[in-house]
Amino acid sequence: MSVTARLVIGIDVGGTKALAGLVNENLEIIATTKRATQGADASRLIDLLTEEVEELRAQASGEVVGIGLGIPVLLDKEGRAAQTVNLPLEGGTPIGAALAERTGLVVASDNDANCAVIAEHRAGAAKGLDHVVLLTVGTGVGGGVIVGGRPLRGAHGMGAELGHIVIRAGGRPCIGSCPNHGCLEAEASGSALVREATELAQANPGSALGQALASGTLDGPKVTALAESGDPLASAALNTIARSLGVGMSSLANIFDPDVILIGGGVSAAGELLAGPARAEFEARAMPPIVKRTEVRLAQFGSEAGLLGAAILALDAVDGSPNVGPVAYPGSTTAPA
Amino acid sequence: MSVTARLVIGIDVGGTKALAGLVNENLEIIATTKRATQGADASRLIDLLTEEVEELRAQASGEVVGIGLGIPVLLDKEGRAAQTVNLPLEGGTPIGAALAERTGLVVASDNDANCAVIAEHRAGAAKGLDHVVLLTVGTGVGGGVIVGGRPLRGAHGMGAELGHIVIRAGGRPCIGSCPNHGCLEAEASGSALVREATELAQANPGSALGQALASGTLDGPKVTALAESGDPLASAALNTIARSLGVGMSSLANIFDPDVILIGGGVSAAGELLAGPARAEFEARAMPPIVKRTEVRLAQFGSEAGLLGAAILALDAVDGSPNVGPVAYPGSTTAPA
Repeated sequence: MSVTARLVIGIDVGGTKALAGLVNENLEIIATTKRATQGADASRLIDLLTEEVEELRAQASGEVVGIGLGIPVLLDKEGRAAQTVNLPLEGGTPIGAALAERTGLVVASDNDANCAVIAEHRAGAAKGLDHVVLLTVGTGVGGGVIVGGRPLRGAHGMGAELGHIVIRAGGRPCIGSCPNHGCLEAEASGSALVREATELAQANPGSALGQALASGTLDGPKVTALAESGDPLASAALNTIARSLGVGMSSLANIFDPDVILIGGGVSAAGELLAGPARAEFEARAMPPIVKRTEVRLAQFGSEAGLLGAAILALDAVDGSPNVGPVAYPGSTTAPA
Repeated sequence: MSVTARLVIGIDVGGTKALAGLVNENLEIIATTKRATQGADASRLIDLLTEEVEELRAQASGEVVGIGLGIPVLLDKEGRAAQTVNLPLEGGTPIGAALAERTGLVVASDNDANCAVIAEHRAGAAKGLDHVVLLTVGTGVGGGVIVGGRPLRGAHGMGAELGHIVIRAGGRPCIGSCPNHGCLEAEASGSALVREATELAQANPGSALGQALASGTLDGPKVTALAESGDPLASAALNTIARSLGVGMSSLANIFDPDVILIGGGVSAAGELLAGPARAEFEARAMPPIVKRTEVRLAQFGSEAGLLGAAILALDAVDGSPNVGPVAYPGSTTAPA
């Protein structure tokens, strides 16, 4: 192991918790900490993030040179998205700028799904490949894209919403703030899995799945465990969302002509039970010369993908890489571009 | 008007004709010529293109410094796509390399739809905007994308096949070599318009559309003309494909977060009869903060978009811009990268 002096802190700021990690230049996670974020307003959130930074800094054997923040798309109270990577605090100060002030460190911010694909691209299942599509299948479906070695951010920092591509124009209404119908998130997410399984369980109360429903609410891990044990109804539910995922993968492959499509997120714990039917549907639908050249793999990183990608952005920001989105510097009074 | 000494030749190589233009550095088309290409093998095609180049060169008042080629995705006889921008001749020589040998000029090659979006980006309806999605609605649906000022080409030069994103997983089988179902090309192309109109005409033989069918085959311009005159069935057919186009636009907007979505191609001659319902469907489906920031416009260039974009690539190649795909130089014995 090489001796590396520089350290950074990557933080994955989620709706329920902020997971932070102290990371070295070999992209090894030295220590982690977390704080619950549910219900925290922006000002409280800055306090929590500052605490995490100070806690990890106290454990650092070298100099901590920067912070990376992965932030989910959040919506303001009118239902408009806050600018993805610049959550406004009171007075409109972006969260990165506030954290830079509080900690005295450079702070790079990006969308959390961008951070995940950056981690896979630089250190994970897509290492060495410059055209990458990542789909994270959890409660919803998130995504990130690397085009020519750089993350796709769009004109306004809101791109790569891969969960909101339509696969069935007349399909299910999407979840939350998305007004669409038949999106990947509505048809191929963990929520869709639970919905499919619940419908099958209700129609077949005597089945193992029906009994599981009778003894409590179904969730993704329960349905996956039943599918893994060979239960036909749970397998059918998983197959349904996997096939839908594969339809979306065919669209994304025809658009991006990528080296690799990665499947990550909580539901990807089902492994080939999810990836197998998704790959089959993708291979049946995408342009044959693209199918021939595009691999479908499971993502490497689990819940640490976001913090690791954020840490990579922090290192890039300190090094002045053009790869980075908005960067805030301590002492700067203006919001990052 | 500034005096410009350098000239280039842009050629849009289609399945029925190759349209070539002599273009100056102001991106003005000085002269054009065309040759029928239907049935021509690769060797004959090189002869035809060489003829066009020499014909235009004879009319040039300044030095012709390079050639740009826009080439559609072609499939080899096994049904595999030839590498998009490197149509192999006998012996595997790419078409650009062969043309460079024959003419002594630098030749830049790209997908024809990429050329169209490059033309709109540099000189047309998306001038000055760095995140652009173009959908060309003709017999099929083509597309091109500008990300951060540069064309999206993918890992193997086959990207931006926007006509082959799925909007209805269980929809119509796609056209030609695409194995997919419910693609934009199957649901929102000129072919889909004729199919919809023909079905309506057959079900309503006494209608104006029914009478038009009785007196000959329907085509896109006939259906559009009837819709423009207020015919309800023709309008309904146009509305159906426009709505489907809008579904695809919502997916593309959520992916690319673009400044602008352009609608071009032959069917876009219907103007707002196509763009209006497409925009309405897009606005109802895409993420609201993206809808707020993304404009939907008609493309500026018609049938000359491809040759103009190819000409721009030729200028870029001569100038050594990183914007360019494969470039062939006369005297080079190897295929372009």
